[in-house]
Amino acid sequence: WSITTVDGEERLRREFKFRNFAQALIFTYRVGDLAETEGHHPVILLEYGKATVSWWTHKIGGLHKNDFIMAARTDTVYREIQ
Amino acid sequence: WSITTVDGEERLRREFKFRNFAQALIFTYRVGDLAETEGHHPVILLEYGKATVSWWTHKIGGLHKNDFIMAARTDTVYREIQ
Repeated sequence: WSITTVDGEERLRREFKFRNFAQALIFTYRVGDLAETEGHHPVILLEYGKATVSWWTHKIGGLHKNDFIMAARTDTVYREIQ
Repeated sequence: WSITTVDGEERLRREFKFRNFAQALIFTYRVGDLAETEGHHPVILLEYGKATVSWWTHKIGGLHKNDFIMAARTDTVYREIQ
């Protein structure tokens, strides 16, 4: 994960690589499902063999502890579908 | 749909609005599933209440008839989940 600044707000961002589009799609769906469960939502850019996830807390205009927790849980989802 | 140029390649792009993240996620999954079936893959930016879909044909560095067909089918997916 790296910290990037978008529109003046810090975000956690990581690019995840996959063998194909289908794997990236499954990953996107599972991370989205986790987000729904937790009530905290990322931005996900889905491409062929790649998904880029960004976590931040818009309400505070940057990063909250919860974003780091969600980033770690995103890594877990990635490991599970390898 | 509008035509935008990214890295010198024309793309068809449309932003779809939703009531919440869950609806945008379902839409993303269904468009991704359609893409897998057709063997032609878009880029999808999934956000809270919004999904932006881009279609183009990398092999020819721009737009092919197939991209317009997939754009129309993406609209159908959108109507179905409203």
